[in-house]
Amino acid sequence: MRKIPISSMDKILEEAGAERISESAKKELNELVEKKAIEVSRQAIKLSKHAKRNTIMKEDIELVLDK
Amino acid sequence: MRKIPISSMDKILEEAGAERISESAKKELNELVEKKAIEVSRQAIKLSKHAKRNTIMKEDIELVLDK
Repeated sequence: MRKIPISSMDKILEEAGAERISESAKKELNELVEKKAIEVSRQAIKLSKHAKRNTIMKEDIELVLDK
Repeated sequence: MRKIPISSMDKILEEAGAERISESAKKELNELVEKKAIEVSRQAIKLSKHAKRNTIMKEDIELVLDK
């Protein structure tokens, strides 16, 4: 099930300067972005547990990038 | 301006197994994901121009990951 709407990919690709975009490119970017987001989320969850919390905080996300 | 809805971050963090999520964590993840998406988009646009196209294709996105 898709978690990020395809219309978001249009906005992002336009912001990046794309002129024309194929549907399959939008789907591919969507999948890539969802995978990356889930990967970061999983690491952030581990970091929150490490800090003995059940709530994911901003610093957990930041620390994922910092590693 | 936000390009991906914050509600998408809820879905993603839940999928990853989060119990509770702070609002600031959702915003942080959203920013991170948007930045990554724009970065990939910019590279894909360069690759499409390199292939003398004005349309971004699926293979441009794939090639970004492949590099």
